[in-house]
Amino acid sequence: MTTTGKRPVLADSVRITGDAVEILDRRVYPFEHRWVRCATSEDVAVAIERMVTQSSGPLFATTAGLVLAAREARHEPPGRAAGRLRRSGERLVATRPTNNHIRDAVHAVLAATVDGPLPEASGDELVDAVTRAAAEHDAAYRARSAALGGHAAALLEDGARVLTHCWADAYLIATVEAAQEAGKRLEFVCTETRPYLQGARLTAPTLVEMGYRPTLITDGMVAAALADGLADVALTAADRVTMDGHVVNKVGTLGVALAARAFDVPYYALIQAPDPQAPTAGDVVIEHRDGEEVLHVLGARTAGEGLTGYYPAFDATPPHLVTRIVTERGAFRAERVAEHFDKENG
Amino acid sequence: MTTTGKRPVLADSVRITGDAVEILDRRVYPFEHRWVRCATSEDVAVAIERMVTQSSGPLFATTAGLVLAAREARHEPPGRAAGRLRRSGERLVATRPTNNHIRDAVHAVLAATVDGPLPEASGDELVDAVTRAAAEHDAAYRARSAALGGHAAALLEDGARVLTHCWADAYLIATVEAAQEAGKRLEFVCTETRPYLQGARLTAPTLVEMGYRPTLITDGMVAAALADGLADVALTAADRVTMDGHVVNKVGTLGVALAARAFDVPYYALIQAPDPQAPTAGDVVIEHRDGEEVLHVLGARTAGEGLTGYYPAFDATPPHLVTRIVTERGAFRAERVAEHFDKENG
Repeated sequence: MTTTGKRPVLADSVRITGDAVEILDRRVYPFEHRWVRCATSEDVAVAIERMVTQSSGPLFATTAGLVLAAREARHEPPGRAAGRLRRSGERLVATRPTNNHIRDAVHAVLAATVDGPLPEASGDELVDAVTRAAAEHDAAYRARSAALGGHAAALLEDGARVLTHCWADAYLIATVEAAQEAGKRLEFVCTETRPYLQGARLTAPTLVEMGYRPTLITDGMVAAALADGLADVALTAADRVTMDGHVVNKVGTLGVALAARAFDVPYYALIQAPDPQAPTAGDVVIEHRDGEEVLHVLGARTAGEGLTGYYPAFDATPPHLVTRIVTERGAFRAERVAEHFDKENG
Repeated sequence: MTTTGKRPVLADSVRITGDAVEILDRRVYPFEHRWVRCATSEDVAVAIERMVTQSSGPLFATTAGLVLAAREARHEPPGRAAGRLRRSGERLVATRPTNNHIRDAVHAVLAATVDGPLPEASGDELVDAVTRAAAEHDAAYRARSAALGGHAAALLEDGARVLTHCWADAYLIATVEAAQEAGKRLEFVCTETRPYLQGARLTAPTLVEMGYRPTLITDGMVAAALADGLADVALTAADRVTMDGHVVNKVGTLGVALAARAFDVPYYALIQAPDPQAPTAGDVVIEHRDGEEVLHVLGARTAGEGLTGYYPAFDATPPHLVTRIVTERGAFRAERVAEHFDKENG
């Protein structure tokens, strides 16, 4: 297995153009490579709500959306421009509550501009400052993901067979790149991850791009696969990790962790840092999405009539089921993940 | 909730006509009510292999297939007719290995005819005897299912919220009918059960026919649903139960049982009797089906290219995760399910 040098398609799936933001539509990938054009920051918010992008995607969409918001505020006087930017930020934060990428991105861009050194910025100065802050936030996120990937790859043995759920996006790509640089061979088992099929459509195809031939299972096969010895380790991203070590991630992760524990397979969760604003699981809002999604696959009805879908988008895995939480600063026992903040970067 | 008196469509999904066997195609139900016409016993075997019917369906298809085999042997001399019938039985048994319904149905019909009192039967005598033995086996199966349903319903509290996986067919219908006769209200949470969506297409619609409005979840949501307190009890059929209490059932059952145990929800498995020919899980052949099924939903591709599907059709849940195994003779602790055979019927 060698590094191809080419970045996977999904590694760069949000782009800023002269008059818009374009977001690769993850709802139809890889069957179509369709880019959704967002002319306004409101369009970006709606795209995030409608799952045009997910996982790490909303972070990049948010910083790009703020660039559009700054452009929209270009002709406002100082002060009013800042207010308009802040309201666009609030709108973006309101799109999806569970992952804190959006909240943190808005905070970072505002702190570097109108909530920080440039409270009176307007016009081109505001646009330039927001564009720079957005690019810096994106770059810092990529750098932290790379650091995380190095720590995660260090936990994987040469030849490890990795079961992963949903789409760990930048963290998975960074982990695989680090393992490849270290000359480690890996194999992958991916869950399809209903209802949006992120495992079947995003994770598995990206691993194919990176040189693997993953095995796909349905979400109900995780326990059987681990009982059958198909994987040596379970690994997922986390959308949020609380200070006491609860891992909030795509629904199904809890079942993966239960099966991993039952069959003595270590379970690693990846996140750049735990959330100091979330002491424990009760502090994280679990997004419930429209149950209709559960009754359809790729737009086609899969269920009979007269029933109701239930769709919690995330679940919370308690720390005793998590072997290690890997952050940009290292691998921590879940109960002690708050020690992340005692540690220097690197 | 009152009994409607009308039998659900799936309760009678195999029918014998003057020149064929017709099997309701469960691969497209409830979207289409399409009956697959089988002109020969070989056609019936192929239909079972191709999942035209499943759960209890293959039992009725098998006895009906033997009626066709007897008709096919009508013009053979005595002895040769018996041989032909036995070979058709072997062909049917070879279709799917995990559930013993097919094996037991073939054994029963042959034991009542050419392997029993009528070794020299041929012509109309053979056809009549096989037709009678087939009907008797079907009727006995229904009677045992009704007895099982009474024992299962007795375990359910009034108002119980029941999570079920895949399609427990005759056992579920009998359990619900018994609960309704006892005036017990029930609610249901159904897993969709990929790849064939039996939960979404068979279980949930049948429960709708019986007067309920079930909640549907994807297979990955079981642990989250139980953690959220959505169900008071988990209940599935079993395709096979070993003498030491392992429950072999549709893949995903093991994950349901792990989650049920983690969140203190009792898990009940339903089967008419454990299998004396299977002392433990290693004695049961787990059918592995074509991995392509995992890459599709209802014929439409759901996964990218370059990957391989893995499809164990069943998993084995160890007895320590099973609260009770309900047979036609009562509810047993899993480790002591062999006591079924010490007990009288009723």
